[in-house]
Amino acid sequence: MKSILKEAKVKKTSPFSPSSQKTRELLCELCRNFYDLGWASGTGGGISIKDGDHIYMAPSGVQKERLNPEDIFVLDLDGNIVEEPGRGLKLSQCAPLFMHAYKIRNAGAVLHSHSVNAATATMLFDKSFRIKNMEMQKGVEGYGAFDTLEVPIIENTAYECELADSLDETIKNNPKSHAVLVRRHGVYVWGKDWKQAKTHAECYDYLFEAAGRMKQLGISLEK
Amino acid sequence: MKSILKEAKVKKTSPFSPSSQKTRELLCELCRNFYDLGWASGTGGGISIKDGDHIYMAPSGVQKERLNPEDIFVLDLDGNIVEEPGRGLKLSQCAPLFMHAYKIRNAGAVLHSHSVNAATATMLFDKSFRIKNMEMQKGVEGYGAFDTLEVPIIENTAYECELADSLDETIKNNPKSHAVLVRRHGVYVWGKDWKQAKTHAECYDYLFEAAGRMKQLGISLEK
Amino acid sequence: MKSILKEAKVKKTSPFSPSSQKTRELLCELCRNFYDLGWASGTGGGISIKDGDHIYMAPSGVQKERLNPEDIFVLDLDGNIVEEPGRGLKLSQCAPLFMHAYKIRNAGAVLHSHSVNAATATMLFDKSFRIKNMEMQKGVEGYGAFDTLEVPIIENTAYECELADSLDETIKNNPKSHAVLVRRHGVYVWGKDWKQAKTHAECYDYLFEAAGRMKQLGISLEK
Amino acid sequence: MKSILKEAKVKKTSPFSPSSQKTRELLCELCRNFYDLGWASGTGGGISIKDGDHIYMAPSGVQKERLNPEDIFVLDLDGNIVEEPGRGLKLSQCAPLFMHAYKIRNAGAVLHSHSVNAATATMLFDKSFRIKNMEMQKGVEGYGAFDTLEVPIIENTAYECELADSLDETIKNNPKSHAVLVRRHGVYVWGKDWKQAKTHAECYDYLFEAAGRMKQLGISLEK
Repeated sequence: MKSILKEAKVKKTSPFSPSSQKTRELLCELCRNFYDLGWASGTGGGISIKDGDHIYMAPSGVQKERLNPEDIFVLDLDGNIVEEPGRGLKLSQCAPLFMHAYKIRNAGAVLHSHSVNAATATMLFDKSFRIKNMEMQKGVEGYGAFDTLEVPIIENTAYECELADSLDETIKNNPKSHAVLVRRHGVYVWGKDWKQAKTHAECYDYLFEAAGRMKQLGISLEK
Repeated sequence: MKSILKEAKVKKTSPFSPSSQKTRELLCELCRNFYDLGWASGTGGGISIKDGDHIYMAPSGVQKERLNPEDIFVLDLDGNIVEEPGRGLKLSQCAPLFMHAYKIRNAGAVLHSHSVNAATATMLFDKSFRIKNMEMQKGVEGYGAFDTLEVPIIENTAYECELADSLDETIKNNPKSHAVLVRRHGVYVWGKDWKQAKTHAECYDYLFEAAGRMKQLGISLEK
Repeated sequence: MKSILKEAKVKKTSPFSPSSQKTRELLCELCRNFYDLGWASGTGGGISIKDGDHIYMAPSGVQKERLNPEDIFVLDLDGNIVEEPGRGLKLSQCAPLFMHAYKIRNAGAVLHSHSVNAATATMLFDKSFRIKNMEMQKGVEGYGAFDTLEVPIIENTAYECELADSLDETIKNNPKSHAVLVRRHGVYVWGKDWKQAKTHAECYDYLFEAAGRMKQLGISLEK
Repeated sequence: MKSILKEAKVKKTSPFSPSSQKTRELLCELCRNFYDLGWASGTGGGISIKDGDHIYMAPSGVQKERLNPEDIFVLDLDGNIVEEPGRGLKLSQCAPLFMHAYKIRNAGAVLHSHSVNAATATMLFDKSFRIKNMEMQKGVEGYGAFDTLEVPIIENTAYECELADSLDETIKNNPKSHAVLVRRHGVYVWGKDWKQAKTHAECYDYLFEAAGRMKQLGISLEK
C-alpha cells in the first residue's frame, strides 16, 4: 500500500523523516485509541515507543486524544532529548519511569494507563494483584491460562517522578511481570514492541475489570 | 498547518471571522465529545468558551452532539447577547450560571455535565463530595494526590436559573473548588481556558465514577 | 449549506425525492446512533419517523446500524405500505405498535429500544417504573424536576404484534407518559417530532440507568 | 451503488477477486466492530466467514481491529489452507474450533468473543448458562421469549486447540444451541451466515450482560 510515491508525498508535507513521521502518527493514533478506552482522560496516560535508537514520547499535561505528530519529543536511549516540539511544551513526567522499562526490560514500548479498572484493582489487594484461571492471561507473555497472574502494586507518591526508585526496584524484583500497578493511580505496562505493549495493556485491563465484577458478584479471583 | 490559503478559504464559506468560526467549531466538536462521554444526552449539558471579550454559548434545548457553528450565541462579558443565531433559537438556561464562573473565577470556559456518575455522586454525600488519595486529583488545579478533594453540593431547583444565587454563594465560599455539584442533577466545572475546563471535568467525572465503584466494592473513599 | 446545486445532485443519485431521501438518511443515521448506545443490537430496536402524510420505517430483522436509505418502508397515516424496498425485506413487526403512538398521541416519531437499562428497569417494579427528583425528568415533556416520573410497564407477549392491545390501552390510560416499558424486553418512546422522541428516549434511558445504579448503591428512587 | 465501474476499480487495486476482496473487507470491518464492543481486545476474538467453498479466517495473535484484507487466510471446506498472507502470519488457533461449527452445524460464519460479559457469565453457572423470559432470546433462532435459553459451558484448556474434542461433543449434544461458552474464557457463536452469527452473538452477549446485572440486583434469572 505504501508506494514510493506516497513516501515522497509524506516528505513534502512533514519536516520529519518518513520513519519518524510514521512513528509520530502511530503514537498520536494510539493515544486517541486509549482515550476512547478511558485510559488517558484528563491529559493523563499515554504511550511511548522506541524506534531504533530513538524513543518517542508525548509532552506533559496535554490532551492525549488531540496530540499531533509535531508535538512529540524524541529521546536517545539514555533519556536525553534529541528533538523537542518547542512552543513551551514540556516532556511527560512519566519519562524517567518509562526509561526504567526500556533499560531494565529492553522494552520496545511503554504504556501508562489510569483506567478506573486499574485504579480500582489496586484497592482489592495489598502488595500485588492476583488472578487465576482466566483465558486472557495468555495474552501476557509468559503466562498460561491456569497460572496465577500477579502484578506488583507500589504505593503512589506525591510527584510522579518520585515513583522512579520503587518502580525500578519492583521491576527488578518481579522479572515475570510486564506491568506495575500504582496504588489508587493506574498501571505501567510494557512489551517488546508497541503491539505487544498494547496487547499486554488490553489483557491486563480486561483482567482488572473482570476482577472488579467478580468481587461484586461474590466470585473468588483465585478459584 | 494553517496556511494563509486555508484561512482565506474559511472566510469565503463562513459569515464569521476566522477566529469566531474556529471557536464555534471547537465548541461544536467538544459538545460531540461530551455526548459520547454521556455528559450531554437529552439536549442537556454542554460547554461555553470565552475568547477575548466574547463568550460563546449553545442554544437551549437542542441536541448538543448536532450543533453547527451557526447555532451559537455570542455574549459580551456582562452577559449581553451580541450575536444570535435567530431561527427561534433561545440562549441556554445555563447562561446566568456560566456567567458566575466567568465573573467570580475569571474562568475561560465553563462546562455543564449531567453524567450519571456526577448525578449519582451527589447521592453519596450530604453537603459536599469528598475523596482522598487518588492520583487523578492532581488533574484539578491546586490539588495533590494526597489531599482530600472536596466538591460542594447544592440542592437542585425547579428551574435552572433559580440555581444562580446558591451557585454564586457556593462558588464564593469554596475558593479552592473548580466545580459545584447539583443534587440529582449534575456538575458545573470551569477552568482558565477550555483545555483546563475539559481536563478538570474529565478528572472530576473519573473521581465520581471511581467513588461509585468503590462504594459498591465496600472501599472507603477517604482512606 | 444546502444549495440548490446540492439538492440537484441528490436527485441524480437517488430514486427518491430530496425530502424522502433526507428522511431516509436521517432514519439510518439515528439507527447507527442507537446501535452505538446499545439500544438496537441483534437487529432489534429502531426509530420510525413521520414526515407529512408519510411514515418511514425500517424492515424487520435487519441490522439497524447497517441500514441504507433504499431499505426503508413508507406507510400512509393509516399504516398502509405505499413504498417498499423489495428484495424480500419485510416491514418491522413493530409497525402496528408504532401506529398506536402516531394515532393516539399524534406523535411525529416513535422509537423502540431494548437497552439493558430499560429491560432491567422493568424488573425493579411491578406495574410502573417510578423515579423522583431527578433533573433529567425535565427533558420529558410535562415533567418537572420535583415530580414523580412514572412509566407504565406492560407484560411481554410471545409475538411483538400481540403487544398491540395492551399497548393501545396503556397509552390511553396514561396520557401523561411518553413511553411504555415492556417487561424484560425494552421500551417504546415517542415525541412530537424525531428530535423530541430522541430527547425523550435519552432522558428515559438515563433515568433507567440511574435507577439501576441507585438500587445497587442502596439509594431510594423516590426520596 | 456498486456499478461495473466500481467493481473494475477494485480489480485494479486488489490482487483478489472482487468477491474475495469484499469478504476480506467485511471480515476486517466486523473485527473492528467487535473490538469496539470489547469482544476482541488483546488480539483475541474475531470472526470467520464462509463464502461458497472458501472459509476466510484471521491470523493468530494480531490486533483484530487493525486487520487488512491482505492479512486473511482462506481455507477450503476441509480446513486446508488455500491462500495465505505470508509475512510470517500464522492461522488463528481457533481454526479447528471454527471448523466444528462449519461441519456439524453447516454454519456460514463462526464468531469467537471473550467479552467480560461472556467470561463472567460462565462463573454464574455450573454446566450451562440459563436465562428465561427475556425478549432478546427471540434473536437466537429457535427460541421464543418465554423459553429457557440454555448455553452449554465447557471447561477451558491450556491450549485453545485442546478445546476441540469437548467443543465437538458439546455441539453435537446440544443441537438447539448456537453457542458454546468456555469457562473463564468466552464464547463461540455461529449462524447460517455472517449476519445471523453477528445477530446471535449480539443477543447472547446482551443476555450475558443482563444476567450479570440481574444477579447484582438480586433478580432471579429464571423467573
